[in-house]
Amino acid sequence: MSILTPEILSTLEKQGIELPSWAFGNSGTRFRVWTTEGTPRDPREKIADAAQVNKYTALAPSVALHIPWDKVDDYASLRSYAEDLGVQLGTVNSNTFQDEDYKWGALTHHDPRIRQKAIDHHLECIDIMDATGSRDLKIWLAEGSNYPGQNDMRSRQDRLQNSLQQIYARLGDEQRLVLEYKFFEPSFYHTDVPDWGTSYAHVASLGEKASVCLDTGHHAPGTNIEFIVMQLLRLGKLGSFDFNSRFYADDDLIVGAADPFQLFRIILEVVRGGGLNNPDVAFMLDQCHNVEDKIPGQIRSVLNVQEMTARALLVDRTALDAAQQSNDVLAANALLMDAFYTDVRPALAEWRESRGLAADPMAAYAASGYQQQIAADRVGGTQAGWGA
Amino acid sequence: MSILTPEILSTLEKQGIELPSWAFGNSGTRFRVWTTEGTPRDPREKIADAAQVNKYTALAPSVALHIPWDKVDDYASLRSYAEDLGVQLGTVNSNTFQDEDYKWGALTHHDPRIRQKAIDHHLECIDIMDATGSRDLKIWLAEGSNYPGQNDMRSRQDRLQNSLQQIYARLGDEQRLVLEYKFFEPSFYHTDVPDWGTSYAHVASLGEKASVCLDTGHHAPGTNIEFIVMQLLRLGKLGSFDFNSRFYADDDLIVGAADPFQLFRIILEVVRGGGLNNPDVAFMLDQCHNVEDKIPGQIRSVLNVQEMTARALLVDRTALDAAQQSNDVLAANALLMDAFYTDVRPALAEWRESRGLAADPMAAYAASGYQQQIAADRVGGTQAGWGA
Amino acid sequence: MSILTPEILSTLEKQGIELPSWAFGNSGTRFRVWTTEGTPRDPREKIADAAQVNKYTALAPSVALHIPWDKVDDYASLRSYAEDLGVQLGTVNSNTFQDEDYKWGALTHHDPRIRQKAIDHHLECIDIMDATGSRDLKIWLAEGSNYPGQNDMRSRQDRLQNSLQQIYARLGDEQRLVLEYKFFEPSFYHTDVPDWGTSYAHVASLGEKASVCLDTGHHAPGTNIEFIVMQLLRLGKLGSFDFNSRFYADDDLIVGAADPFQLFRIILEVVRGGGLNNPDVAFMLDQCHNVEDKIPGQIRSVLNVQEMTARALLVDRTALDAAQQSNDVLAANALLMDAFYTDVRPALAEWRESRGLAADPMAAYAASGYQQQIAADRVGGTQAGWGA
Amino acid sequence: MSILTPEILSTLEKQGIELPSWAFGNSGTRFRVWTTEGTPRDPREKIADAAQVNKYTALAPSVALHIPWDKVDDYASLRSYAEDLGVQLGTVNSNTFQDEDYKWGALTHHDPRIRQKAIDHHLECIDIMDATGSRDLKIWLAEGSNYPGQNDMRSRQDRLQNSLQQIYARLGDEQRLVLEYKFFEPSFYHTDVPDWGTSYAHVASLGEKASVCLDTGHHAPGTNIEFIVMQLLRLGKLGSFDFNSRFYADDDLIVGAADPFQLFRIILEVVRGGGLNNPDVAFMLDQCHNVEDKIPGQIRSVLNVQEMTARALLVDRTALDAAQQSNDVLAANALLMDAFYTDVRPALAEWRESRGLAADPMAAYAASGYQQQIAADRVGGTQAGWGA
Repeated sequence: MSILTPEILSTLEKQGIELPSWAFGNSGTRFRVWTTEGTPRDPREKIADAAQVNKYTALAPSVALHIPWDKVDDYASLRSYAEDLGVQLGTVNSNTFQDEDYKWGALTHHDPRIRQKAIDHHLECIDIMDATGSRDLKIWLAEGSNYPGQNDMRSRQDRLQNSLQQIYARLGDEQRLVLEYKFFEPSFYHTDVPDWGTSYAHVASLGEKASVCLDTGHHAPGTNIEFIVMQLLRLGKLGSFDFNSRFYADDDLIVGAADPFQLFRIILEVVRGGGLNNPDVAFMLDQCHNVEDKIPGQIRSVLNVQEMTARALLVDRTALDAAQQSNDVLAANALLMDAFYTDVRPALAEWRESRGLAADPMAAYAASGYQQQIAADRVGGTQAGWGA
Repeated sequence: MSILTPEILSTLEKQGIELPSWAFGNSGTRFRVWTTEGTPRDPREKIADAAQVNKYTALAPSVALHIPWDKVDDYASLRSYAEDLGVQLGTVNSNTFQDEDYKWGALTHHDPRIRQKAIDHHLECIDIMDATGSRDLKIWLAEGSNYPGQNDMRSRQDRLQNSLQQIYARLGDEQRLVLEYKFFEPSFYHTDVPDWGTSYAHVASLGEKASVCLDTGHHAPGTNIEFIVMQLLRLGKLGSFDFNSRFYADDDLIVGAADPFQLFRIILEVVRGGGLNNPDVAFMLDQCHNVEDKIPGQIRSVLNVQEMTARALLVDRTALDAAQQSNDVLAANALLMDAFYTDVRPALAEWRESRGLAADPMAAYAASGYQQQIAADRVGGTQAGWGA
Repeated sequence: MSILTPEILSTLEKQGIELPSWAFGNSGTRFRVWTTEGTPRDPREKIADAAQVNKYTALAPSVALHIPWDKVDDYASLRSYAEDLGVQLGTVNSNTFQDEDYKWGALTHHDPRIRQKAIDHHLECIDIMDATGSRDLKIWLAEGSNYPGQNDMRSRQDRLQNSLQQIYARLGDEQRLVLEYKFFEPSFYHTDVPDWGTSYAHVASLGEKASVCLDTGHHAPGTNIEFIVMQLLRLGKLGSFDFNSRFYADDDLIVGAADPFQLFRIILEVVRGGGLNNPDVAFMLDQCHNVEDKIPGQIRSVLNVQEMTARALLVDRTALDAAQQSNDVLAANALLMDAFYTDVRPALAEWRESRGLAADPMAAYAASGYQQQIAADRVGGTQAGWGA
Repeated sequence: MSILTPEILSTLEKQGIELPSWAFGNSGTRFRVWTTEGTPRDPREKIADAAQVNKYTALAPSVALHIPWDKVDDYASLRSYAEDLGVQLGTVNSNTFQDEDYKWGALTHHDPRIRQKAIDHHLECIDIMDATGSRDLKIWLAEGSNYPGQNDMRSRQDRLQNSLQQIYARLGDEQRLVLEYKFFEPSFYHTDVPDWGTSYAHVASLGEKASVCLDTGHHAPGTNIEFIVMQLLRLGKLGSFDFNSRFYADDDLIVGAADPFQLFRIILEVVRGGGLNNPDVAFMLDQCHNVEDKIPGQIRSVLNVQEMTARALLVDRTALDAAQQSNDVLAANALLMDAFYTDVRPALAEWRESRGLAADPMAAYAASGYQQQIAADRVGGTQAGWGA
């Protein structure tokens, strides 16, 4: 019998992880963006690639859009295209870091014209959400400064709150705003939303439809991220995850690749706090496949999240509670490690087959010929990347 | 004419920095606590030493107590003793990290008996505040865990909130509770109040008499501390500072010793946000003089804060605003650096003399013979340290 | 059939991890050292406890001594005592951080008298090594400074080299000197041997009998430790490991507890570089069991090392080499993760039983009654700790 | 009389800081490269801009080239062009991070063809050095990997050593190779030369003409950089500095902008170890002016180095030695702080005027109209950046 109980499998069956359209385009560092054969040239090709991830894993039912990178003339048509491939259009991500006007800020800018332009961009994003049927507007702000004195942090904060209020007011009844925070980059002295506390303070004052987006790579060295997960769930303000992993800065590596035990602890707190398969807490990827293949990179990522969720669900909560009550540190810790070290992969492969999926999605995708096909087909045009 | 305008000097004249009684006792690391001649043996001797700092600087009008280290039978008498030496008894600090009962927690403990004991300890602290005339109860919690799984972080958080509510309810009309946060140590996996966001969430739900204590050494590497200062002032919840400095962890070095420019930026945000000489924002030291002399160490510290405040007040705000509005990064930054690099020490020495103080407080104290006197007098007994 | 091949099991059978005598005494932080029932009062009791770890795991054949904490009148007798319990006396650790004379340095001190005293202490340690049959002298230097300017780092470095030369000259033909490095603590500005480069430069100039000790907790945040392992093996200068783990600073937690995947990568480089079961590369623990039980804490630790070694040995090197040669990032990474996620514990338990050991050493020790026995027996006296 | 003695001024007069040609081109982050009016389009325009920095400061007598960004047909002509503008061509920097062939490595690549190509690129750089009269070949390697297992770190290290030997063998009698190290980026798991120890081990085995380049922004959080300066000077292997500053990662901000006291301590160790105005220790900038103006950014930078050198030269070494010998921590530290807080800027301005330079180089440049001129003249063409 499987080590994964029917209850666990039933929970896993409900799991869905949103993919970022930009993960299928080229990405890199300030030193170099490497290109690869078969990279999508437009939003449809990105969605087609994302659908492959879902086809082999049944874990990725939706694709997040990035505006303007994924702007199209007809969103209804794009939506139909996606749905025909078995995926939904998901979170809409705004972009205020590439227009020349935003060099010194966007939602925080001291020039009312530019600030209004940035607000309008977000209102346009909500228009797009109406058309795509997307629920969430995700705001990551690249704003900040590189040198002490360059800007007045306080008045920027006040303007930010005001801008967010205007955007929030435009949300439909079923729509949400999630505000991401980031420790640093692209600004190197101050960032306008650098930590969960700042994001929380803003969304708490906005209202019920606003919550925090936690990107697992956006913290200072040593930060106990699962503590923040616990706290935001407790405060009712954990809106979504951007999953990825890091050794140093915002490396945007494959989720679970750098510190799998950290991912385990994070999901454990999600489970503990009622955040698993809870529509209020969206699971998303936000990664850069700088050197590895993109579609398999995404397949690997959603599998990592699924496997780690299975391990987290294996923790014997009753025994854990007893060990904690009796201050038996080693026993309590061992209960976590026991689940973490349990090899759930064979049971997952078996279950996958029972659902008509390939036991090994990585191998099945590799064998499918899709990669060779797109390499052959997608000749000419401009490969998608962070600039488009 | 002095580079310090009458307005600046008038501002500086109002500045007061509270000293921690424990800075006059021995301190060290887990490897060794070094002793020194003349170290106080009881609260009165600590207060006498603190009064020396104020005598030579007119900057240290009050002394914070630590309970139980500074427990006495008669607080009214201790108060008179202090006042006769020209200083007030200030903030009362609770201690929940040295009683055997608190090995697994105090205000967060799952055992109702121990949790009640910890709450009662805080109620006793407020009783002492009534007797000493202290306004602030400062709570730093050493609570946490060393291994994943050892504790349930979420239920501890809920119990903490409940405990704080009970303590808060006991506060007098003019009293306050300030909740400190700390990144890590003495716990090495999770800490129950690890960041400003957690402290803020708790005090915001407690009420107006609760606010955050920001210890400048309690952050993750790279944290932009002045941003937090700005944010807490904006949110109306910056209750107090624990000043010190650090290169690595919670080094508790002399304030301004490790990164003077950081101290400058912090005070700049205090000034910008209206926190200077604002009774709502208490300035305190929290340092360890592990190897250097204690009384001169404290004199050096309050002088560092005063000098940096003078530099911060020199910033040309009008010119800065203009440079910021025109996005002239180099000009704006230069206005900060210009103030930072201005040598305010001669003007401060001159002003000190005009007020009947020694131009050089360090030299005046060294020449006074006080250190030799206490070394000769304080023979026998047990030197004060973190254990007493 | 076991997933662990006979070749792997044969390799694992040779593995030995030295235990630190001080792990059985009390330890803590500057805030508090918690005591526990049954803590040893003298070196023999520490050795007796260490022998328990070996009894249940067959992984801990030797015990490191710390001088002066483990000073006895008759080392030959101590050696016999240990051997009767089935363990050897191992590495001798010097201590230059607790004598009042060493407040400002020891092997680096500018006062020739104190420097000579520190050198003599090490010569005495080598005398003890002659008596105990120990091969290695391990030098960890707590020396440094807390404030810029306090010391002249350069002349200290020159004196250190000179002191080490004098100690090195005393080594017997079969003896070695291993020089540990540490990022910070107990000094908070500069440490005289802060990184592997400094340790390497010193031991390279000393000669063949000197090498580097790598403590896994003594690095800056984010350091790629396995890279250093690889480099020191390449340079022929990796003398020993001090295993433990950390989330923040030198937390000294149980090895593998904080980041198991990091431990996996470290051992992988040990295997790759020929350092496994190589007498030139000693495996030791250096941990603090501040809150958890000490003997089970050590049992858990050596099991963690064994389990992770088993996982590392599972990596398919041929396939890995092929994936690397073809730049197949995902395949190469998957080969590591596949080994890491394989649950080796059942196979190890089975193998343990085949060797006459308990399948579950933690449970067997708990059931043995030893802990209750020492709690009952060891009444009175002074519990061992870092001060004794 | 000036606070700067004739001896100090004489020392300052000899100071020269090399400028990087690429600092005058556009730079940015992976998110965006902002363009500015007047940015150079070719190497001559970069050199012309660099000459402006020297014109107003007399501190920047040479310009480093980056190959292939600064490739020209006729280096003799470029050299004459520079000399006519009063500057020399300096260090030649190789580039192995932008050619498609180098995606998986260059000097470390497992494919002999690509590795030879990378070696040949360096040999070509030395040919260029012959033509330009440059002494130093600076090698910064972007090589590494993003995922554990992606590469075999050990064999890469062996190939690196072999490649460096081939390059070293080509050096002329008066030429040098300096090997830079970097903590991380653009690789996010391992970097082939991540720390000073690795660079030192390589250059020590190469020979006397090889030494280490220390980039002040390439270290782990908390690293005591001045210690490394001291150590490399002691070991005779500090070949050059790449000056810049950082709050977080490799921010490449203006030197002295993030932590001026750190820059002071670094230069203090340079002075202490005999590295100032020592031809063996080259001073260079390596910065990115992402948002601020480039020419004034470089002027500000060389002035920062000059001012900090003046402060470092003010330290009373005799008094410092006495305070250190007597273990007077506060006195010793005060001697450093006294020099650091001394405002050397008026004396430097006066001295500048006495040499026929503008008292305020920033203002003089701004008033010169050069910036407006290049903005008007440099229309069309492709602005220089990291890609050209």
